[in-house]
Amino acid sequence: MQEQDLEFYAEGIFSGNRRVIAKAITLVESTLPSDRRLASRIIERVIPYSGKSVRFGITGVPGVGKSTFIENLGLYLAGKDHRVAVLAVDPTSRRSGGSILGDKTRMEQLAAHENTFIRPSPAGDTLGGVAAKTREIMLICEAAGYDVVMVETVGVGQSETRVSTMVDFFLALLIAGAGDELQGIKRGILEVADAVAINKADGDNLERAERARKEYETALHLVMPSSRSWTPPVLTCSSVTEGGTANVWHTVEEHRRIMEDTEEFGQRRRQQALDWMWTMVEDGLKQRLYENETVKRKIPKISEKVEKELISPSAAAEEILSYI
Amino acid sequence: MQEQDLEFYAEGIFSGNRRVIAKAITLVESTLPSDRRLASRIIERVIPYSGKSVRFGITGVPGVGKSTFIENLGLYLAGKDHRVAVLAVDPTSRRSGGSILGDKTRMEQLAAHENTFIRPSPAGDTLGGVAAKTREIMLICEAAGYDVVMVETVGVGQSETRVSTMVDFFLALLIAGAGDELQGIKRGILEVADAVAINKADGDNLERAERARKEYETALHLVMPSSRSWTPPVLTCSSVTEGGTANVWHTVEEHRRIMEDTEEFGQRRRQQALDWMWTMVEDGLKQRLYENETVKRKIPKISEKVEKELISPSAAAEEILSYI
Repeated sequence: MQEQDLEFYAEGIFSGNRRVIAKAITLVESTLPSDRRLASRIIERVIPYSGKSVRFGITGVPGVGKSTFIENLGLYLAGKDHRVAVLAVDPTSRRSGGSILGDKTRMEQLAAHENTFIRPSPAGDTLGGVAAKTREIMLICEAAGYDVVMVETVGVGQSETRVSTMVDFFLALLIAGAGDELQGIKRGILEVADAVAINKADGDNLERAERARKEYETALHLVMPSSRSWTPPVLTCSSVTEGGTANVWHTVEEHRRIMEDTEEFGQRRRQQALDWMWTMVEDGLKQRLYENETVKRKIPKISEKVEKELISPSAAAEEILSYI
Repeated sequence: MQEQDLEFYAEGIFSGNRRVIAKAITLVESTLPSDRRLASRIIERVIPYSGKSVRFGITGVPGVGKSTFIENLGLYLAGKDHRVAVLAVDPTSRRSGGSILGDKTRMEQLAAHENTFIRPSPAGDTLGGVAAKTREIMLICEAAGYDVVMVETVGVGQSETRVSTMVDFFLALLIAGAGDELQGIKRGILEVADAVAINKADGDNLERAERARKEYETALHLVMPSSRSWTPPVLTCSSVTEGGTANVWHTVEEHRRIMEDTEEFGQRRRQQALDWMWTMVEDGLKQRLYENETVKRKIPKISEKVEKELISPSAAAEEILSYI
């Protein structure tokens, strides 16, 4: 039965059957052990056919116009016969009730296009779990022939770091501040971005956006670039002017070309796969720790003793480790 | 016998006996299980008397004049009847042969002063191990009455992040670039610094230093500050002009005053202790993993399969976790 199931899913995915793709993704998102087992086998079955897309990560806080940016860029690419999948990593979506990509009214045009596939953030208690599922969903989309996979995140709880480790190109979408030109950037964004784009650079806002662009350029120059052959540029873009999102895509393409020429592309993909493996191992270890009943029972007392400086953090750690 | 040993060390530490302090630190640095056990008991014994110093972390790559800065500041403080301990976290010192604070000719004047205690970076294979030992040595120094503990690091392998989690104030020491004003900053430094100081701001270099100061100020404004009531300033300093290092100390004192007023000081210390405990627990878990014989034997093959995309990182992680 499972063998038949496996081939049903594999064939559906390879032929680009959206209904089957959606069902396979539901298995990946499921918490039922039997579903998880089948999902793992599906992933192993399709993984040789994955990897052929441009993996494009986008982060930006609410209000920067991320949905409109993605919809415009997605429509532009779909119009050029690209097949575009849009996924999301949002560890807070189920808890807070709100969800990126969860709102059905968002990206209506893009969702209706025959060349696109949109999937909201999977549910999950931990960022690690949510990100792991999104990564597996990306592999399924690639095996189904989607050649551009956009992964968006609101950058909550270091989700931008997780997303940056699963994509080829990571874009930080910002806007020029209303009263103040400067906008707080969360921990790590500048260091993992392959480009920064100041959105809403149009009309009255054009001058402010250009000023913000220059400031971020200075800031980015102060950060050690992660690639030998790519200095993250700071762009401006707009969803209301002609070609306003296409210029961002040209940067993604140029980056891809340079990374392939210098062989950094394959290196980055291989390193990401290994890093991902170790992240999953460490997440698994932590999960075992935090789910350990003795540890759970002892933690409040141990934490209190550490806070009151009755025992050293080292001694407390040794005690916790002794329970597992 | 051990009880006598324990009291011998405790009394020696409380009375500020340098020879006994040095011996206690040697126990902390030892890898012998019996030494480690005694060291743990000493730490537990002295921890109620620790915590009363200004914990001052300093990072800077070789060439920024860190030793001279620390020597000058240390002499300034010792001259004002402070008792100053200088420790180091340098995970590479034993491997590379070079070592910060290892060179006997460094900080000669400071080392000779009766109010100071200088200790090079402890040996260790892992950053976690080195940092953990330095933290324990800090507690011993505090119990011995040192009221300023400087912890220096060259910022190798995220050691600056580790040091920032054990100090009250973390300073990034930089210089204006020779040809280029801009200097690459390693991952995370801007985010964990409570202040940035451009060193060698004197003579011909004054103008360049001032320009660099302004640039870092812009960059720092783009990073979300870690405190509600403190925006990390960018200072200039010099080891050759009068009062050139004292102004940095005034900033440290001002920071302390504000943090105590807002009660962030105690919160930060308590949070650091808890974070430290969890870091030690996670380090301990990883150590168990990496020292597991089956895991060690299987890793090369599993890694190869992941790199060649024969299995997914998730499946590889599950396999690794199944061995422990």
